[in-house]
Amino acid sequence: MALIVQKYGGTSVGSLERIQFVADKVAKFKEQGHDLVVVVSAMSGETDRLTQMAYDLCPRPSAREMDVLLSTGEQVTIALLAMALQKRGVAAKSYTGGQVPILTDDAHSKARIQTVEQERLRADLDAGRVVIVAGFQGVDDSGNITTLGRGGSDTTAVALAAALKADECQIYTDVDGVYTTDPRIEPNARRLDRITFEEMLEMASLGSKVLQIRAVEFAGKYAVPLRVLSTFQEGPGTLITLEDYAVEEPLVTGIAVNEDEAQLTVRGVPDRPGIALSLLGPIGDSNIEVDMILQNASGDGSPDGPATDFTFTVHKRDYERALELLKEAASGLNAHDVSGNTDIAKVSLVGVGMRSHANVAARMFRALAEENINIRMISTTEIKISVVILSKYKELAVRALHEAFELEKIRTV
Amino acid sequence: MALIVQKYGGTSVGSLERIQFVADKVAKFKEQGHDLVVVVSAMSGETDRLTQMAYDLCPRPSAREMDVLLSTGEQVTIALLAMALQKRGVAAKSYTGGQVPILTDDAHSKARIQTVEQERLRADLDAGRVVIVAGFQGVDDSGNITTLGRGGSDTTAVALAAALKADECQIYTDVDGVYTTDPRIEPNARRLDRITFEEMLEMASLGSKVLQIRAVEFAGKYAVPLRVLSTFQEGPGTLITLEDYAVEEPLVTGIAVNEDEAQLTVRGVPDRPGIALSLLGPIGDSNIEVDMILQNASGDGSPDGPATDFTFTVHKRDYERALELLKEAASGLNAHDVSGNTDIAKVSLVGVGMRSHANVAARMFRALAEENINIRMISTTEIKISVVILSKYKELAVRALHEAFELEKIRTV
Repeated sequence: MALIVQKYGGTSVGSLERIQFVADKVAKFKEQGHDLVVVVSAMSGETDRLTQMAYDLCPRPSAREMDVLLSTGEQVTIALLAMALQKRGVAAKSYTGGQVPILTDDAHSKARIQTVEQERLRADLDAGRVVIVAGFQGVDDSGNITTLGRGGSDTTAVALAAALKADECQIYTDVDGVYTTDPRIEPNARRLDRITFEEMLEMASLGSKVLQIRAVEFAGKYAVPLRVLSTFQEGPGTLITLEDYAVEEPLVTGIAVNEDEAQLTVRGVPDRPGIALSLLGPIGDSNIEVDMILQNASGDGSPDGPATDFTFTVHKRDYERALELLKEAASGLNAHDVSGNTDIAKVSLVGVGMRSHANVAARMFRALAEENINIRMISTTEIKISVVILSKYKELAVRALHEAFELEKIRTV
Repeated sequence: MALIVQKYGGTSVGSLERIQFVADKVAKFKEQGHDLVVVVSAMSGETDRLTQMAYDLCPRPSAREMDVLLSTGEQVTIALLAMALQKRGVAAKSYTGGQVPILTDDAHSKARIQTVEQERLRADLDAGRVVIVAGFQGVDDSGNITTLGRGGSDTTAVALAAALKADECQIYTDVDGVYTTDPRIEPNARRLDRITFEEMLEMASLGSKVLQIRAVEFAGKYAVPLRVLSTFQEGPGTLITLEDYAVEEPLVTGIAVNEDEAQLTVRGVPDRPGIALSLLGPIGDSNIEVDMILQNASGDGSPDGPATDFTFTVHKRDYERALELLKEAASGLNAHDVSGNTDIAKVSLVGVGMRSHANVAARMFRALAEENINIRMISTTEIKISVVILSKYKELAVRALHEAFELEKIRTV
C-alpha cells in the first residue's frame, strides 16, 4: 500500500483503445490497495492539431490564448480516463491544472510551478478515489491558464509527487527504461535498473529524450523517487535515485548522443579581454542559446598581436541566424574567417563513477582514435565528457565506446 | 457607442473560415466604437464528437466528467476567436465560464446560472478589449465545471447582458430572424421586426427552435433587449421586447408547429376523484414530461357508474414507455381501452392580441373546418391556442391559418 503518482504520455493515451488499456492498468494498481494520482497528457496528435488551427488563424498567436487552446487537450483526456475507470467500477475524479490548483508564474507557454495545493486531492484519496490530473497546465494568480511547455506533464507528475510526498513517481512511456545508449545505434545497449539524478540530468540534457530535464531537476531537488517504465510492456523500468552506487560502481553509466547542434568557429580574433562578450553578446541578445564554448590558447603568429580561435555550438534551428550575427561581430574585430558546420554529433559519456577516476577521458580518446575518428571539440564536467565529431562517425563512436567501457555487462548494485 | 453582447452559435464558428468571418464582423462592430462581449459555442460537430468518445468508453458516463469533457469545445473556440481578432489588430481576451466566473448550481449537464461576476470583464472592456466568453458553461461553488445543457450558450449571453446591463443582446444564428411561421411550410411566412417575450416563449416552447426557452425567460425576467439575427446575411433581425404593441396590433403574431409529441388516450375509466393521479402518477415518477392533458366531461353510459376519457401528450422518445405504464395503470381501473398515436402535429396560434379578442378560436376552427381538418385535441392559454391534428394535415393547416389571419401583411408598429 503506497501512494503512487503515475504519468501516461500522449502515445499511451493516443486512442480510445489505449485509454481503455491504461484504465485497466490503473484499476489493477488500485485493486492492489495503492492510492493513485494519475497525470495524463493530451491524446497524441491533439496538441499538433490545435496548434495548426491557431497558426492558420494567426501567424503569431498570443501566448495567453495559445495556453487556453492547448490546455483543452489534457482536459479531454482526464475526463475520458475518469469515465473509463468509472466503467470499471473504480471511483475516479478529474482535475484540470486550475482546479487542483497548480499555481504557476505567468510565463505563458513555459510557466514554472510555484505551489501545488493538495487539500482537494488528499480528500479524494482519503475517500478512496483515483485522482486524475491534467498534465502540462496550471493557473497563475490572476486565474489565467498557463502551460509548462512541451513535455511539461512529466513536471506536473513530479510536482504532485513532491507535494503529496508520494512513495514513487512513475513515468509511463513507450520505452521500457533508460538505456546505456540508444538501442537503435548499439543493439547491445542495456536497460539500466537504476541511475542517479545527476546522471539522468546529463543524459537528458545531452539528447536522451526519455524524460524532460525540468522534471528530473524537480525530482532531484525534492528527492522524489522517479521510475521510467513502459505502458505496454511489463517490467521494472529504470529507477532514478539520489543514492550513489555501491562499491562496484562502473566508471560510465551511459552514452548520450545529440545531433541537434551546429558548430560555429571564428578564427584569428585578437586575444584581449572582452572578446568573448563581443562575439557572443549579440547572439545571447537574440535569445539564441549557446551550448559548448571553447577558446583555444592564444597563439601569437599574428602581426597585430596575439590572436585566438573561438568555437561554440547552438541549436540547429538557430544556426543561420547565429552565423549571420557572428559574421557581423567578427568583421568588426578583423577576424581571419568565420565558418560553421551542421553535420556534427555530440557523443557524451555520463557516469558519477568518473568523479573518482582520472583515466576515463584517456580511455575515451583512445577508443575513438583506434577507429580513426577525429575529435573536433571536447568539454567536460565532473560526471560527463562530451566530444563533438562529424555525424557520419556517430554510430561507430557509440559502438566503440559502449564496448570499451563494457556497458553491455550488468552492473552489480 | 453601446455595450453589446453577441452570441455566435456552433454553425457560425463551425470552421476556421467561419471564425475568420465572425472575427471580421466583430472587428467592424468594434471599429464603430461599441463595447463588445462575444459569447461562442463549440465548433459545430465538436460536441457530438466528444460525446461519442465518452459513450464509446462508458455507457453511462458521470455527469461531472461529461461536463469536464464537453466544456473543452467552447474553450477551443474562445481561444481561436481571440487569436483571429488579435490578427486583425483588435485587442481581445478569452474567458472560460470558470474564469469569469459564471457561478451555477451543481446540477451537472443542466446547471442553472446563479451569479455572473463582472469585475474582470468590466476591466477588460474599460481597457478597450473585446471580451470573449465560452458559452454553455460555468463553475459551481466547489470549483467543478458545469454545463447549462444543449443550447445553453444563448443563456450565457443573456446572463452576461443582464449582469453588465448591456444595451442589447444579439443572438447570431443561421436564420435571419423569427418568422410568422416555418418558411419551409408557408413560403409567404414573414420575418417579424419585433415580438414580445411572452410570444417568443410560446413560440419556443411550441417547437420554434430559433432561441432556447431558458434564454428567453431569462431575458424577459431581466428586461434584456434580445435580437435574433443571421451571421451570414445582413439585416435587422427580430427584436424581442417587453413592450406590447401599439393600437394596430394584430390578433395573431405567429404560428408554431411541433411534431415532437405523441398522443395517448385511455377510454372508459371511472369518473371519480384521484383518477388523474392514478393514471399520470406512474408516468411522472418515471421522469416522463407530460404536455397537454385533457379529460372529457363525464358520460354515464357505463353500468359501473359515470365514466370518462383521458388524453395527454408526451415527447415521442418517451412514447413506448409511457404507453406501457399507462396500460398497467389502466388495467387496475378496468378501463375500456388504451390507445396512442405518434402521427400527430400540434399547430398553435400565438399572439398577445388574443387577450382582448374572443373570436380568435372561432376563426381558427372555421379555417380548419373549411379544409376538412379534424381537430383531435385543443388547449388554450391567454396568448395561445393549440390544436392537435394528424400530422399529414400539418402543411395544409399552417397555410390556411396563415392566410386566415393575414400574417403575410406587414404589421404596423
